[in-house]
Order: sequence, then structure tokens, then C-alpha cells
Amino acid sequence: MIKIAIIGYGYWGPNLLRNFENSNFFEVRYVCDKNNDSLKKIRSSNKKIIKTNDIGKVLKDDTVDAIVISTPVNSHYKIAESALRAGKHIFVEKPLADSSAKCKKLIQLALKNSLIIFVDHTFLYTEAVCEIKKIVEKNEFGDLLYYDSTRINLGLIQNDVNVLWDLAVHDLAILNYISKLNPIEVSAVGHKHIKNKPETAAYLTIKYQNNFIAHINVNWLSPVKIRKTILGGSNKMIVYNDLEPSDKIIIYKKGINIVKKQNSSANLIKYRIGDTLIPSLKNKEALAEAVSEFYRSIKEKKFNSKSNGNDGLNVVNILEAADKSMAKNGKPMKVSK
Amino acid sequence: MIKIAIIGYGYWGPNLLRNFENSNFFEVRYVCDKNNDSLKKIRSSNKKIIKTNDIGKVLKDDTVDAIVISTPVNSHYKIAESALRAGKHIFVEKPLADSSAKCKKLIQLALKNSLIIFVDHTFLYTEAVCEIKKIVEKNEFGDLLYYDSTRINLGLIQNDVNVLWDLAVHDLAILNYISKLNPIEVSAVGHKHIKNKPETAAYLTIKYQNNFIAHINVNWLSPVKIRKTILGGSNKMIVYNDLEPSDKIIIYKKGINIVKKQNSSANLIKYRIGDTLIPSLKNKEALAEAVSEFYRSIKEKKFNSKSNGNDGLNVVNILEAADKSMAKNGKPMKVSK
Amino acid sequence: MIKIAIIGYGYWGPNLLRNFENSNFFEVRYVCDKNNDSLKKIRSSNKKIIKTNDIGKVLKDDTVDAIVISTPVNSHYKIAESALRAGKHIFVEKPLADSSAKCKKLIQLALKNSLIIFVDHTFLYTEAVCEIKKIVEKNEFGDLLYYDSTRINLGLIQNDVNVLWDLAVHDLAILNYISKLNPIEVSAVGHKHIKNKPETAAYLTIKYQNNFIAHINVNWLSPVKIRKTILGGSNKMIVYNDLEPSDKIIIYKKGINIVKKQNSSANLIKYRIGDTLIPSLKNKEALAEAVSEFYRSIKEKKFNSKSNGNDGLNVVNILEAADKSMAKNGKPMKVSK
Amino acid sequence: MIKIAIIGYGYWGPNLLRNFENSNFFEVRYVCDKNNDSLKKIRSSNKKIIKTNDIGKVLKDDTVDAIVISTPVNSHYKIAESALRAGKHIFVEKPLADSSAKCKKLIQLALKNSLIIFVDHTFLYTEAVCEIKKIVEKNEFGDLLYYDSTRINLGLIQNDVNVLWDLAVHDLAILNYISKLNPIEVSAVGHKHIKNKPETAAYLTIKYQNNFIAHINVNWLSPVKIRKTILGGSNKMIVYNDLEPSDKIIIYKKGINIVKKQNSSANLIKYRIGDTLIPSLKNKEALAEAVSEFYRSIKEKKFNSKSNGNDGLNVVNILEAADKSMAKNGKPMKVSK
Repeated sequence: MIKIAIIGYGYWGPNLLRNFENSNFFEVRYVCDKNNDSLKKIRSSNKKIIKTNDIGKVLKDDTVDAIVISTPVNSHYKIAESALRAGKHIFVEKPLADSSAKCKKLIQLALKNSLIIFVDHTFLYTEAVCEIKKIVEKNEFGDLLYYDSTRINLGLIQNDVNVLWDLAVHDLAILNYISKLNPIEVSAVGHKHIKNKPETAAYLTIKYQNNFIAHINVNWLSPVKIRKTILGGSNKMIVYNDLEPSDKIIIYKKGINIVKKQNSSANLIKYRIGDTLIPSLKNKEALAEAVSEFYRSIKEKKFNSKSNGNDGLNVVNILEAADKSMAKNGKPMKVSK
Repeated sequence: MIKIAIIGYGYWGPNLLRNFENSNFFEVRYVCDKNNDSLKKIRSSNKKIIKTNDIGKVLKDDTVDAIVISTPVNSHYKIAESALRAGKHIFVEKPLADSSAKCKKLIQLALKNSLIIFVDHTFLYTEAVCEIKKIVEKNEFGDLLYYDSTRINLGLIQNDVNVLWDLAVHDLAILNYISKLNPIEVSAVGHKHIKNKPETAAYLTIKYQNNFIAHINVNWLSPVKIRKTILGGSNKMIVYNDLEPSDKIIIYKKGINIVKKQNSSANLIKYRIGDTLIPSLKNKEALAEAVSEFYRSIKEKKFNSKSNGNDGLNVVNILEAADKSMAKNGKPMKVSK
Repeated sequence: MIKIAIIGYGYWGPNLLRNFENSNFFEVRYVCDKNNDSLKKIRSSNKKIIKTNDIGKVLKDDTVDAIVISTPVNSHYKIAESALRAGKHIFVEKPLADSSAKCKKLIQLALKNSLIIFVDHTFLYTEAVCEIKKIVEKNEFGDLLYYDSTRINLGLIQNDVNVLWDLAVHDLAILNYISKLNPIEVSAVGHKHIKNKPETAAYLTIKYQNNFIAHINVNWLSPVKIRKTILGGSNKMIVYNDLEPSDKIIIYKKGINIVKKQNSSANLIKYRIGDTLIPSLKNKEALAEAVSEFYRSIKEKKFNSKSNGNDGLNVVNILEAADKSMAKNGKPMKVSK
Repeated sequence: MIKIAIIGYGYWGPNLLRNFENSNFFEVRYVCDKNNDSLKKIRSSNKKIIKTNDIGKVLKDDTVDAIVISTPVNSHYKIAESALRAGKHIFVEKPLADSSAKCKKLIQLALKNSLIIFVDHTFLYTEAVCEIKKIVEKNEFGDLLYYDSTRINLGLIQNDVNVLWDLAVHDLAILNYISKLNPIEVSAVGHKHIKNKPETAAYLTIKYQNNFIAHINVNWLSPVKIRKTILGGSNKMIVYNDLEPSDKIIIYKKGINIVKKQNSSANLIKYRIGDTLIPSLKNKEALAEAVSEFYRSIKEKKFNSKSNGNDGLNVVNILEAADKSMAKNGKPMKVSK
């Protein structure tokens, strides 16, 4: 059994605790939070769990193998770094850190100490996203043309990060997972509806190699909740609606064919419309899958898990470029590698 | 009775013919098209209508009071200019012309000759958009925060104009109508899915005075048809779904209140959720309303109709800036006045 | 060219006229209506069509080969009988007549004179219903278990027929077409929301041979329009939503398997959930298909078309039994053969 | 604190345990189930709860004030009777018992001993149903015309009760709550898709005094889940969709007006279409509200709670009549009082 400590028991804490407790591979030794009220909300019947405010005590405990970090984003780096220095694997909520420089330092530190960095890009562990990856990788999907995502709702307005770091991060993790293409350049325009707060709405466009484009619309001030992504391919297209209870993915055989006209330099465009398929998806909890993947990474010393440190860095690289572009009202910015 | 000639009898032609014929104020004298096959499709039982390929003949006929132009965009200017020079009012399909310079020339020419320019910004004549304007103008709506529109489908891919000039033009006409705020700057990113064709997808963001922002997502290669616009206000928000047969507009009393915390510099955010209202809309044909407005403009020498030449220019100003930004991958561009 | 006369130019008249005019096989000679205002609404540019109030004149004209009857239900029989006696084929709006006895007389008369009776069970000529029939006839659909249809809206309340004869008639025509099973017995409960008017809502259940059951819910006083039919099979199930613009049919591979438990008299029930398919449907106008089928019936002396006199009788047999049951608040009534 | 014992810890058990534990008014002393595996699933951190198979022991414990019964329907009566004889209040899952005779005995016994019978008609404690009752009771709703409910899904097929006793019971409880009208007569047709099992689909129609009618469609073999109820009034209509996450109720100002024609015996029908309202509903857990109401009933010796023994009887009276009608394929059956 791998012994873990959970640092930060806020909104997501109960889900982490439940899933690590339900796993056969982990034993939760500590839940640590600065706030005693948060600790009081722990409902586990496990008497061995130690509730504490003292993160130092946790890191010093040599029986602890891994640290689960679900604190505010701006504290990720400091805790992650201390944990890696203390020789512990880390499971970090998204995004990995609040700058690419910090991500790189964590990656180097982990590499040096042969430790696992696992970023909780939760969506990669849903059946829906796994299915999308399978479909896209088949030849019959054709070339990736575009990814267009709307992720809006009347959301919790955050103080420390803007809406891109809170919501677009999910799309960036999915894009990084399903496409192996490199992002080249971003353009982002944001909007602050409330004075002295981070951007509450943002529109981000990313140009990739091979003429693939991604567009992400995120908003904390929408009267309706939408989680809808269209993935256009040259032969098939997918509409992914994460709010559907079961039929989350619809695969369309729709598109256009470009036919060379005889005796003419012009092209003829023909529309294709075929049957539509809704694949049956298993109803697994994504976080349980993530916990299992974290276990396998540790056990098999697998540094290239689905959402490792480099994946975390890739996502933060785009967020950083987006912030720069947003500060200049859409001016295109290169994405670092 | 005002005597008119329709120039261009393509996709939209039958709708124009039917609505001008059904009006009590107009008499259709000519339908003119280069293509005889198009003319053959005319099903009117009116024997007085002259079908012709000869636009010159039509413009020379002094009994013709007004010209209805529904030809490809790049021919609008030439026909409109000739018609104005021949002393005829014009009713032009959107957009008014393919450049702001041409729009300005037409406006000056019309002014000089006391003639009406009417641009067929059809959506302004729908009950839905009229209702939205009414709601937005009430104090209880609060400040305009954002306009976010998705207008995508597997559409007719055009050769002469890109997807912004075909689809976003509707949103720009609506924005110009419902808000009196000035657009400052745009950022647009486009995508050519097909070589040697105009952009098939584009993402346009417009910053207005008073911290109002508009975002428009248009795409000719979507597997699903969406016509959905969210209009966020500080007190209320509207979702406008043009594909709904009757309940096109939903008004949400949702949003956030920012409350000053006592003894603290921080603000407290409170969510407001109230009842939702779906106003009953009459089911009038927009084009019939446009035809009536054109009549009133001519009759009352009203140069400031809902969609006059200046409105046409305002829309083209933004399209021009968007094209420039799109050519530079999102670089912000000022909107001319 | 088969020469026809249309008797009754009300709500459905323009659709009939347009489709018979568009057909290459028919020539419309007369449109006959008692009401001159109705005749004035004819917009055809065909100068040969004679508009008349005099049905006698039409029937006497020997150049007329066939009569299209779209008058109120209670006048169908008289006109149809006169037409058949005058040696003309008939195309009758649904239902064929207002009693099974009258249907039988018409069938005998047509048989004696070798004339075609075509009942306009329009839905049978939609792509959706044709596709459903194909799916159901494949072995992989399994046994037909149930048909459950909701057909409600805020409808035109009729004076001469109740809601079953107006709306349920569509379901009965579809049932008669897609299943070759015999209806045994019906139970119907109706409701008169308005005094001195026919039933405005009715709930009809039909038991067929082989344990197949159909349930039909029709209502003229619903605030929402619903046209939804579920067809349950032992292996697959279909949901048919006629209001969807294109994805009208969804095929589910869902159901239960009953497994014999070993060493036990009890059965184990296992749920099956597979992929879902939305077949691509062509967008043909049903009435145009009906007109073609009517032509083929006449040309090929085909007395067993998709919606011949016997089909019209089968539907009226159930409506008659339903009326009897409804008069006794649901008492089961046998269906005549 | 009122001390309770929960008898039966199956599907619904964890919800009952959690809500009684979360209440400030109750203390859970026992959870009793025949099946030790069920008892093992208890996750409470409360060490005082005694887990047992011995219901006799529980009933003999004088410190226990009330018994919560969530066992299979056919065992309700025996446990309820023993509990009442032992001087304990009872909270019984729906339906109260499997016959009206048994319900009556329980009611008499409770009355004699001044004990509370609370039936867990859960839906009555949802915000949606409470709101519907409020709307219906206002004059502006007009007369109740009809209630039409579809409650279908691919459901757990039960062995001891048919689909009416499992699903229609919810509608009957809602009907009994929102309307004070008396049911007169029912007609029900059922269908057994699986041999030797109870009915898996049933169509039930109930005639009430004052020309009010209810229709309930329940099915365990539907490929799609639907929970949709239309409540028609003479001035307004409600559509209640329980699967909507928040906008569960839509209130339509739609209907018809019957206008006396001058100088004529005929009536003119006019359609009314007004604005549509979606009331904002609080998101309370229904079972928590039920637990509070049970507490108030005990504390205030309130025998006429929202879902008391008589309400349980009213529901079972209709189910009994429906079973009789179903056995005769829809023959109308009077409802006992």
C-alpha cells in the first residue's frame, strides 16, 4: 500500500479522499489543511487518518510515499517542491503551477530524484475523452481540422487565477492528449466584468502545425451552463457534450469533398452526410481512473503517464502565452516549447 | 404604388419577389438576372412582370422608382451606384458593399440625390431582435456586459466572401442595432480548411466603449447547426436561440452582486438567481417587415431607417478591420468611424 | 398525363395542388370548392385549371381520370362514391370515410369498376417511417414489444371529428404499415374539455396478436407540441421524433436479456446497452412520394399500394372500436376484421 | 432527540440513514436488515448505531420512538403493524401497504394509539411539486383540466410489484396532494413483456369529479428516460420535467377561450398565447424535508401531515382499482373511498 497525505481539503478534497480510500493501492495517512473548519468536514470512518494543520510534520513523516496537492494554484509550486525534496511522489491538481518556469523546476527535481509528477488533468480519465482519442487516431477520421469548445456557466469567480487558468485549462489538457501536433501561436482576448478581479470571460484561439486550429470560449458570467466541444475532422466530426448524462459523444459522418472539375481549374464542393453514431460509454468515475494511473506510474516507474509533468508544462506554456496575448488585446504570441 | 425592379434572382430572389408582391405598396415591374435558368424559376401569376437580362433597360425605365439588389456582394456597388445615378432608391442585400470606401460613396450619392438606401439586415426585422432591443433598453437590464454568438453549420462555402462577410455580418447588424456603443478595436483569427478558398471558420472579438465586449464564432464546416447568442447584462441576461420555432428568447434574472464588505477593502460576491421569462413573440415574416420599412422610408423621406446606409457602413467598417486582424493572426485593429 | 380534379381547397389544398402540378404524370384540370374565397387563394400560373363550385360538372367531364378529395371527413363518402360511380380513381385524405361500413362500400365499388382507391396516409411516405419499417423487418430488431406515441399540441379544435380521428389516425396508419400483426382489442378513454365539442384529449391502447401492444396519447390542448413515438423491440428500440429537423430516428441497442439461472427456477435479468445509431434520412416531401405512388397504382393497376382502400378500412376499424370504448370509459372492445 | 430504527437497508437505505443522521431532531439507534452484506455497507462514523438482523429486539427497545420501514412492499404491513403495536411512530416507504384493507387497519391502529403514520411520498417534498401546488391553487390557474404524466426508463424490473406500484405511485401521490378532487373511476391496460413477471408497462387513466382527468404512462422497458408531466388548467398550463437540473417547471399562459358568437348558437374558439415563466426553485433535498415533516408530525401530534396514513390509503385505493381494471384489459373500475 502506498501511503499518502492530502494537502488542502477544500471543494475537491472530499472527492480525492473518497477515491484514494476506495482504491486498493493507497492508504490515506494525513489530511492537512490550514483551516480547522475544513478538517471538521471529513466524514471518513477511518480512524487512522491524522488531521493536521502542520504540513511540515507531514513532509517529515518517512512513511508517507506521496503527496496529493489540492491547494490554491499559487501555492502548488512551493508545496510540490518541498514534497519532491522530501522524496515524495506528487499528485497535483491542475494546473501544475502558475508559471512554466516553476513547472520546469519541478520536472527537473522529480527527474533527479526519480519521483513521479502526476497532474490531475481529470478529463483525460473520462470515458468520453478516451473514446474521442480512439476515434481521432483511426484513419477514417481524416485530418484534424479544428477544435471548438464552449465552457461557460455562472461560476465561482476566483481571486487568484483568471478564467483561462480555471476553465480553459481543461481544454488545453484534452488538446495536448488527443493531438500530438505542436501549438505555434495563440491569440486571446479577455474581459474583466468586475473591477480588481481577474478576467471573467476569455476567447482563446490557438494555431497548431498542419493547419489545425483550436478555439476556446470560457466565461464565469453565463446564465446557462454549456460544456460543448466540436472536433472537426476531414472525414468525420465529433460533438462532445459533457453535460449529457450518458450520450456524451456524437460522431457525425459529415463534411465536404473537394472534387476536381474536369476541363476546369475550379473545384467542385460536394457535401457528405452519412449516419450518425453515439457510442456507448461506461460510467466510470474519472478520478478513480486517475488514482489508478497514479498508482501504476509509481509502481512501474512510468514517467510518461497520460498526465505527467511535461503535460502539465505544455498546458501552462499555452496559458502563459494566452495571458501575454490577452494583455495586448489579442496580439498573437508564440507558444514556448 | 412604388414600382420596383429586382436585380438578381438567385437563392434569396423568390423570397424578395413574394414579399414585394404581397405588399400593398409595391408593384414589381422587372426581375433581372444574367442567367435565363434563374428567370425561368419565377412562378408569379402576375403577367405584368418583365423578365430580362438587360439591367441597362431597367435603369433607363423612368417608371421604376426603386431597385432591389440581390446579386453577389462584389457587384453590389456597381449596380447600386448606377441605380442611384439613375435616380432610384435602393434596397440592397447585406452587406451593403465590399468595402467601406464604396459604402461611403453610395451614402454621399444618395444624400445628394435625396434617395433612400435600405440595407436588408433581415434580423433587425424579426420579432426576436426587436424584443431584445426593448429588453436591453430598459433600466432593469443593467449595463451591457457582453454579446457572445455562435453561428455555425455545414454551410454553402462561398467563393467571393469569407465566412465573416457571410455569417458574422448578421451579428454585426444586430450589435449595431441593439447597442449605441462605439466599437473600438477588433481581434480576429480565421482558418482556411480548403486551399484557395476564403476563410471557412473565424473567431472575432470586438471591444466597445464602456467595457462592452462582443465575440462571434462563425463556421461553415460544423456538423451541427447552431444559432445561439448570449447577451449578458449586469442585472439580466438573454439567451437567444434562433432555431427554436417559437421560444426564441429566454430572459434570465441571473448574475452576481458585488457587495462592499464592512471593515475590509475586499469585495464580497453574491450570486443572484431569479425567475426566468420566455416572452411570447408574434410570428411575422422578417422580410415583410423590411419591405414595409423600406416603403415608409421612401414615403416619409426617412433617411434614418433601422438599416440605412450608415448602418450598412458601420457593419462593413468592422468587417474590414476584422479582415486586417485576421491577416495578422489576431493582431488588434482599430475600427474606423 | 393523368387528368385530375381536386375537390376541397382548404388547409391542405395548396399542398395537393403544388405536388400534383410538380409531378410529371398529372395534369390538374379542376379545383372545386363550395367557397369562392378558397378558390381565390389559388396562386397557380397554370391557365388551364378551371375553378368551380360545381362538383357535378367535374364528375361529368370524361377527360377527368381521377378525383382528389380533401373535404371534411363526413363528406368523403358521398364524393368518393359519386367519383367511383363516374369511373374515376380516387385519392382521399385520411381517414377514408367516417365509418367502416362506408369504407367497405367504397372498396367493393372500386373493385367492381377496377378503380384505384388511394388513401393519403401521408406519414407512410416520409423517409422516417420507411426507414422504421426497414429496421423493424430485420431479424436483428427482434420481436415487436410495444409502440408508444405522444401526438399533442395546442391544435385546431375540430367540430366534426374527435381528436382520435384527427391525430391518432396517423399512428394507426403507421402501425398498420410497419406491423403485419392483427389488432385484437382496444381500450380508450377520452375527455371533453369543452362542452358540446368532440373529445379534445384521448388515450388509446390497442392489444395485437403476439403480445404486441400500442398506446397512443393525443391532445388538442397541450401547451407544448410533441410528436414522439417509441417502438420497443426485444433487441433494439427506436425513438422517432418527427419534430427534429433531420435526426428524426434514433436506434438504441438497449434492452434486457433473460438468462436461465442454473440450478434454479428463477430467471436472471441482464441489461444490454450498446451503441446508438442515427440513420441519415433523405429530405423528400412525403406528399410528392404519395402522388408518385398514386400514379404507379393507376398505371400498373396495382390495387395493393401502401395505402389502399383496405388500409383505410383497417384504420377506421380501430377508430370505430375506440369510439365505442371511449363511450364506455375504457371498456375493452373487439376490433372488426 | 427522537430515537429511531431503520428497518431494511437496501437501495434507499443509505439515503434514509444520511438524512436522519443529518437532522438535528433524530438519533439513529438501529439499522436492521436480514442481510449482513447490506449492513456491511453502512459507512456512518457514528459508533452508537447498532447493526442487527433481529427486528424483534429493536421493537422491544423502549428507548426507540419511531421505526423507519424501507423493506419490500409486501412486508410493510407486518412490520408496520408490529411497530404500531409496540407504541412506535412509523415512517414507511411508498406505497404504505400492498392492499387498502391493510392500510385501513394501520390507520385505525395508529389512531387508537395516538401514533403517527408518515408515508414517504418523496415527491411531495420537492420544491418542484410544492411550487406546482402553489400555482394550481391560485385563481389565475383556472380549473384543472388534465394531468398527463410519462414516467419511463430502462428500469429495474421488480418481482413483487408491477410497474404501477413502482412508478405510477409517484404520480398518484402528487395528484392526491395537488388536487382535492375525488377520483371516480379508472381504466388501465398493462403489458407483460416478460413471462412470469409483473406488468412492465401500463397505461392508466383516472376520471375525477369536475371533469378532471389524469393519464399516467409507466414503462420499465424504454430506451430513454422520461419524467415529464403536463398539468392543464383552463388559464395556464404547467410542464414539469423532473430530469432538468434546475428549470424543472415551465408555466405557460396558453389555452383557448370560448366566446359566444352574437346572433348564433355556435361558439367561437380563440387561442391565447402569453409569456412563459420558469420559476426559480431552491435546491433542497426532498428526503431532508420529509424527515423534518415527520419530526413536526410527531412533535405537534399532527395527524394530517402532507403524506399521512390517509394519503397512503388514497394512493393504494387507486392502485387496487387499476390492478382490477388491468386484469380486464381496461374495463372501468370504481375507486373506493
